[in-house]
Amino acid sequence: MALNVYLSGEIHTDWREQIIEGAAGLDVSFNSPVTDHAASDDCGVRILGAEDQKFWHDHKGAKLNAIRTRKGIEDADVVVVRFGDKYKQWNAAFDAGYAAALAKSLIVLHGPDHQHALKEVDAAALAVAEEPAQVVQMLAYVLNGVLPS
Amino acid sequence: MALNVYLSGEIHTDWREQIIEGAAGLDVSFNSPVTDHAASDDCGVRILGAEDQKFWHDHKGAKLNAIRTRKGIEDADVVVVRFGDKYKQWNAAFDAGYAAALAKSLIVLHGPDHQHALKEVDAAALAVAEEPAQVVQMLAYVLNGVLPS
Amino acid sequence: MALNVYLSGEIHTDWREQIIEGAAGLDVSFNSPVTDHAASDDCGVRILGAEDQKFWHDHKGAKLNAIRTRKGIEDADVVVVRFGDKYKQWNAAFDAGYAAALAKSLIVLHGPDHQHALKEVDAAALAVAEEPAQVVQMLAYVLNGVLPS
Amino acid sequence: MALNVYLSGEIHTDWREQIIEGAAGLDVSFNSPVTDHAASDDCGVRILGAEDQKFWHDHKGAKLNAIRTRKGIEDADVVVVRFGDKYKQWNAAFDAGYAAALAKSLIVLHGPDHQHALKEVDAAALAVAEEPAQVVQMLAYVLNGVLPS
Amino acid sequence: MALNVYLSGEIHTDWREQIIEGAAGLDVSFNSPVTDHAASDDCGVRILGAEDQKFWHDHKGAKLNAIRTRKGIEDADVVVVRFGDKYKQWNAAFDAGYAAALAKSLIVLHGPDHQHALKEVDAAALAVAEEPAQVVQMLAYVLNGVLPS
Amino acid sequence: MALNVYLSGEIHTDWREQIIEGAAGLDVSFNSPVTDHAASDDCGVRILGAEDQKFWHDHKGAKLNAIRTRKGIEDADVVVVRFGDKYKQWNAAFDAGYAAALAKSLIVLHGPDHQHALKEVDAAALAVAEEPAQVVQMLAYVLNGVLPS
Amino acid sequence: MALNVYLSGEIHTDWREQIIEGAAGLDVSFNSPVTDHAASDDCGVRILGAEDQKFWHDHKGAKLNAIRTRKGIEDADVVVVRFGDKYKQWNAAFDAGYAAALAKSLIVLHGPDHQHALKEVDAAALAVAEEPAQVVQMLAYVLNGVLPS
Amino acid sequence: MALNVYLSGEIHTDWREQIIEGAAGLDVSFNSPVTDHAASDDCGVRILGAEDQKFWHDHKGAKLNAIRTRKGIEDADVVVVRFGDKYKQWNAAFDAGYAAALAKSLIVLHGPDHQHALKEVDAAALAVAEEPAQVVQMLAYVLNGVLPS
Repeated sequence: MALNVYLSGEIHTDWREQIIEGAAGLDVSFNSPVTDHAASDDCGVRILGAEDQKFWHDHKGAKLNAIRTRKGIEDADVVVVRFGDKYKQWNAAFDAGYAAALAKSLIVLHGPDHQHALKEVDAAALAVAEEPAQVVQMLAYVLNGVLPS
Repeated sequence: MALNVYLSGEIHTDWREQIIEGAAGLDVSFNSPVTDHAASDDCGVRILGAEDQKFWHDHKGAKLNAIRTRKGIEDADVVVVRFGDKYKQWNAAFDAGYAAALAKSLIVLHGPDHQHALKEVDAAALAVAEEPAQVVQMLAYVLNGVLPS
Repeated sequence: MALNVYLSGEIHTDWREQIIEGAAGLDVSFNSPVTDHAASDDCGVRILGAEDQKFWHDHKGAKLNAIRTRKGIEDADVVVVRFGDKYKQWNAAFDAGYAAALAKSLIVLHGPDHQHALKEVDAAALAVAEEPAQVVQMLAYVLNGVLPS
Repeated sequence: MALNVYLSGEIHTDWREQIIEGAAGLDVSFNSPVTDHAASDDCGVRILGAEDQKFWHDHKGAKLNAIRTRKGIEDADVVVVRFGDKYKQWNAAFDAGYAAALAKSLIVLHGPDHQHALKEVDAAALAVAEEPAQVVQMLAYVLNGVLPS
Repeated sequence: MALNVYLSGEIHTDWREQIIEGAAGLDVSFNSPVTDHAASDDCGVRILGAEDQKFWHDHKGAKLNAIRTRKGIEDADVVVVRFGDKYKQWNAAFDAGYAAALAKSLIVLHGPDHQHALKEVDAAALAVAEEPAQVVQMLAYVLNGVLPS
Repeated sequence: MALNVYLSGEIHTDWREQIIEGAAGLDVSFNSPVTDHAASDDCGVRILGAEDQKFWHDHKGAKLNAIRTRKGIEDADVVVVRFGDKYKQWNAAFDAGYAAALAKSLIVLHGPDHQHALKEVDAAALAVAEEPAQVVQMLAYVLNGVLPS
Repeated sequence: MALNVYLSGEIHTDWREQIIEGAAGLDVSFNSPVTDHAASDDCGVRILGAEDQKFWHDHKGAKLNAIRTRKGIEDADVVVVRFGDKYKQWNAAFDAGYAAALAKSLIVLHGPDHQHALKEVDAAALAVAEEPAQVVQMLAYVLNGVLPS
Repeated sequence: MALNVYLSGEIHTDWREQIIEGAAGLDVSFNSPVTDHAASDDCGVRILGAEDQKFWHDHKGAKLNAIRTRKGIEDADVVVVRFGDKYKQWNAAFDAGYAAALAKSLIVLHGPDHQHALKEVDAAALAVAEEPAQVVQMLAYVLNGVLPS
């Protein structure tokens, strides 16, 4: 068994790197959105032409990013969605809903402060964790049946 | 043609009532989540037994609410998701993602302040509006081809 | 909103009647398997001809019952599966798995003794209850947002 | 033609090993649940934190195991479900129902004592066998058209 | 529970009428292909213009009939396919395969002479009967749990 | 049997009226796009606010119209697409492709001049006709088995 | 582009070999049913135990063969179904219907004598050919755009 | 992440070559229809036999080409549809609709003259570009997060 894992959500800490490094040696392939915030915001207009209005500037970029996001979620066996401390992060919750409707195995990663606000998202998940290391431990267990010592 | 519309999201203003009243006379049926905040939070433990930990208290409630929410979205032709001024509203974004993955026609309703934060949600929508009255006008147009005078 | 509910599982107590009577006045339609044990066992050979071997006797009956069972589950919004105190009840667990794979809202009903043995089934459910009255309360809440007083 | 086979059910005998060894030389890849009973029971709390109540202890574990189980069934061409002599084994019947709803080719493996109790599960299967060696013979036949001599 | 039943196959005896009359009083709606042989053969060219070649004459008719056939099968809960004594009846077997792939409940109706030639079709069915009266008895049992006296 | 028919394509002649009037007395319900050209072009900006650029003006309108179009096609048993003498009519061909991918029964209506240019669209259809009256005749035949006298 | 092709139907001539040899050098992988008639008839009882009645003898075999057949069709991009001069060949027509319902590209291969009897099957096909060499030519064209010289 | 891209539409300029060459070094595989106009028109009759009527001549060819086209679109992550200056190009719009209904990521490529006529197609797309080089830039961004310098 090999797993394809999509890492959605917060882009301001190194949680993706922690998981990817921790999972070295496991039969997992990872995909993520573009995590370069500036590139992600401006990709649409940089390639397809400038817009006067911010709404359409954002719109072009969000749609271009959706090509990657949808491919990542649709190919995934497991979708991990991390909610950080800051920002609205509605795209993370949107990805979680998208993954849930496609019956993907969903893992949600967030601190205890967000527990109540994320209760609907957590209710759709197969696991709720606080630390990236727990995600690595789950991947190791799911693939090899080995628990952390 | 008749439309089944699910009204998801913000529960602290009367936007649902505005739409439902405005749409009187149109061939539309509406569904919504339970909008009584206290009932929605406590339904799980009230029916299925108390929990010591807040996480499981919330979990039981969120899952029970999901029976209604999923039925509402899956039956809908159009899903309207409103984001208000306050709170994280991750369940609203989750519903939007769920609806998008099921290829429902999505209408997003929010003020100009949230434009950038909601760009991924808006990019999946067939319409982005600011006022409930615009939703009514769209329903009237979609059903009867009549534009506001 | 109206709900179509399929009542699967144990056939030796009156739990179905309790739910159906309790739900009088709610916009719910119920379906169930044939609960006449003898008819359910013999339907195949009674209509399609006797069999010398018990395996084929059972086989003919089980397949004929499957016409009803699958129709019931596929039409349902909510599948309630009850596990009683006796027998293997593998058909109940089979129905639960079938319903889960079709993304139906699953409610499991069983006493505390079966908690560990049913953990995989419960994990796929949106609610786990012990009493038929709780199912009625959930249906009332899901449909009307009203909690038991 | 190559086959992906998921081996679900009983974990107290070496039937999986018998099939896997017997199928050496055939173009088959096998997947199974985690068959270490203790690890399977405790995986949730070991990774995600202890629970006071046994129900939630079990719940966390069952959901984590579901990531592996669902991946295994969804990837499979053939799902073999074995029912042993002991225990309720509701998870085995649940997997059989899940596989049936996804239109997987289902093989059920059980002794003659369970024939009546498993009639609904058997009715959904393409083959019912008693011995692991028969499963190997079927895989050999399906892949290469060769019957046992 | 109500059933929608599609009656496919042989058109030279009154088996459809027997079933429909026998099922009077049951909550069943029936659909069938056009059973006027001449109309069925010529419908394409009569409406869409003559063809010089018999192949295209047949082709136009078969496609027009497919509008009805596909609607009938896709709407059905139960597809009954009858094979008579004469002709190739490949369209009946085609309908059976089409219904099987859509996971419809399939009932096959044929005499004992065709048993071996229809073994693959029978293997996909939930019931194999010889007489129209048996189909009526099954519908009565599936709907009302009542066996023939 | 009743049919739901979506009438897509050309909006400058009265072909829809001819079909609807011709089908009076048949158990058919019809849906169509908004056929008021000016309303269809401007609906987006009239309801959701003006745009400086024609591309976004068109974009808002096309998306709002898509709510109706997709509902119409997804609900349909039969999709009739008419290509007239003028304009590019790419939306008609788009609807035909959309309907084909959803396995809808497709009827294409066009004059002999467009035969070669429409060969890929015609190849996906169950019938190709030139006159609205032929569509009426087909609906009558599909529903009632009656051919034109 | 590579193609997976399933060769269904008649097993008494060497048409499969002709196609497979003719397609040497093309990026095509082929699958077929077991074409050893005796093995195909007896596989069920040889592996799973003898049956007194011919119906169950056939039934066991047909279901075991279905594991291979369904895998072959579901994995295929193109399903070629050949009808020979003899026998009822209802399994071939069943496979054609199964493939059509799964939206597979269907090629039917038969002599001119069967044209009328196969009109419904042909109507669901993307090509109707008489000779295996034509199938090879089509595969070459579909993959490489090269027509026979 | 690797992408499978189908290049549909206009066949009289070298836009496909520009994209394929520009994407050298990216992890993309491309598929296209047969772009040899004469071969594409005549493939059906060349392989399957001549037709007297042009309609059936075209029909046979269009269906044979559909084997390749559907495989290409169904396998694709991204479908790029280019509309050129000439011809009706209804097959391009048909492919766009087909891709949209399958929820493929759609990129439309056309000059500013066609903006109004293609508004419904553009509304279903995740990006609308004018030049092949923009498609290459988008593929590079989607795969590697790198914007053009």
